[in-house]
Amino acid sequence: MDLVAGIDIGGTKTKLALVDKSGSCLARADFRTKEYPDLEKYLDNVKLSIDEMIEKTSAEVNLLGIGIGAPNASSHRGTIEHASNLLWKGIVPLVDKLKERIDLPIRITNDANVAAIGEMLFGNAKGMKDFVVITLGTGLGSGIVSNGKLVQGYDGFAGELGHFGVLAEDGRLTGLGVKGGLEAYVSATGLKRTILYMMSKYMEDSRFRSIAFNDLHGEEITQAAEEGDFIALKAFEYTGEILGKALANFTTFSQPEAFFLVGGLALSGSWIFEPTKRHLEENLLEVYRGKVKLLPSGMENKNSAVSGAAALIWSDHTNE
Amino acid sequence: MDLVAGIDIGGTKTKLALVDKSGSCLARADFRTKEYPDLEKYLDNVKLSIDEMIEKTSAEVNLLGIGIGAPNASSHRGTIEHASNLLWKGIVPLVDKLKERIDLPIRITNDANVAAIGEMLFGNAKGMKDFVVITLGTGLGSGIVSNGKLVQGYDGFAGELGHFGVLAEDGRLTGLGVKGGLEAYVSATGLKRTILYMMSKYMEDSRFRSIAFNDLHGEEITQAAEEGDFIALKAFEYTGEILGKALANFTTFSQPEAFFLVGGLALSGSWIFEPTKRHLEENLLEVYRGKVKLLPSGMENKNSAVSGAAALIWSDHTNE
Repeated sequence: MDLVAGIDIGGTKTKLALVDKSGSCLARADFRTKEYPDLEKYLDNVKLSIDEMIEKTSAEVNLLGIGIGAPNASSHRGTIEHASNLLWKGIVPLVDKLKERIDLPIRITNDANVAAIGEMLFGNAKGMKDFVVITLGTGLGSGIVSNGKLVQGYDGFAGELGHFGVLAEDGRLTGLGVKGGLEAYVSATGLKRTILYMMSKYMEDSRFRSIAFNDLHGEEITQAAEEGDFIALKAFEYTGEILGKALANFTTFSQPEAFFLVGGLALSGSWIFEPTKRHLEENLLEVYRGKVKLLPSGMENKNSAVSGAAALIWSDHTNE
Repeated sequence: MDLVAGIDIGGTKTKLALVDKSGSCLARADFRTKEYPDLEKYLDNVKLSIDEMIEKTSAEVNLLGIGIGAPNASSHRGTIEHASNLLWKGIVPLVDKLKERIDLPIRITNDANVAAIGEMLFGNAKGMKDFVVITLGTGLGSGIVSNGKLVQGYDGFAGELGHFGVLAEDGRLTGLGVKGGLEAYVSATGLKRTILYMMSKYMEDSRFRSIAFNDLHGEEITQAAEEGDFIALKAFEYTGEILGKALANFTTFSQPEAFFLVGGLALSGSWIFEPTKRHLEENLLEVYRGKVKLLPSGMENKNSAVSGAAALIWSDHTNE
């Protein structure tokens, strides 16, 4: 049975799975990334985990390759470069080192690109050739597909739309110091900052007046909106306006058939989708109106990262 | 001898050429577009012009196909749609109608995409897989190449960066009503508007204080800059700042190896290239610094439109 190993390298955990052609996970494993500050030992453990998953699988396994999602990954060089939330510093030649242990096709790319490829093979972007996945977590990531292929750029670092400057000079700074950068507004953290901003702007009562910033969690904002909290409603409207306008602008670049909103903040559902969709449509050039969809992920949430990683290899096989 | 017919459909003139694999024009023709308000007669004349060019060519001609550059062209549908500077209104099925007369592969796309494909096959983007061509004429057009292919989008209308909103809400309007849209600042017309703006802002003397807006031509602004005219220098710096920042932002989208500045305003040379390059580099994310080139066209100016149009067909053959 043909299978691909999908690996999601996160700051806390490394998750692995054997993934079949339909995106289903036949075996899973995980371990704590932080327990392996030594890359060589980390990769030994990756190999061990894969071997164990293969053993556990009842069918005869033909491993086609390994797909990896990781922060700051360069698909071109097979490296992880200066990832702030990983222990391995500098430029890490992950693919080459893993290949020394498992001599199969190995591909790596960042989390948002993994989300895009996963969506195309196994999710709601099936059959689409042009779309953009926006991942809304602590920050904002993006995976762009054009002509059925990931837009990776000259150096493998395309799709950093979280650092696209969308607001005027005096806007909020992103983690990389971009003034008015998108993710400073549109992300879990951005939404929390907007709660503060709205409480500074308006004097209406809100449950958030008695919660400190550091104690504030995204799900609470959704819950507050459902209860009609003035500040939460203002915050979602503001976030949707900034995101909608940004997506309208991005449409002039690659004219996607759809934008997908995935990740934590996207789970707020219509609270984020409705204002975003409205401002997107209002700000589109006439030639694009009514043609750009705004969609949720079609990936089963728990497996999306590892199935998506495996899709990096599966996409090579389905293209053949 | 294998040749491709390249056609550049402009509001005033239609230019045609037979183009060989190296981009050289072996025969040329042109006629006035405006003399043919009737599309059928126009296309009859296109066919006639191509036949005449073939006759004029001393070698035995094997015509591989026809590539066409035209305003508001949809490559997906083979149409010209609502082009304001052409006499044929609505949606014009140009490719289908021409195919009735010449049954060969026919491809059409807009001028900026033609410029991009031309640059890739015959110009300074040879060997590049990821780049963006910015055409600076009356407006601003863009042709985006990713993974060696034109980014055309879901509907064939990707790459309308002239209408990307780069400035705050109260910015200048583009012809399509986009507030703060790039081409309202960065184009021949945008530069002229900036001359007015700078004269409103500063009281320094300038040759432009005695020239009416309608009498002002782009080349004069370059000449004035060369003579040290304060207003012209301010205007180029301002234009380069807006363009450079926009290109830095666009880099987060597709991370091109190079941006090409082509067309009228690009002929101002270092007056536009220097400030653009400086603000581009200053505003790039760290991961992109020192990796993004800003280049002039490598196409022989007179033939770029028709050679580029022919490249639409030649690119199919070189990919094989």
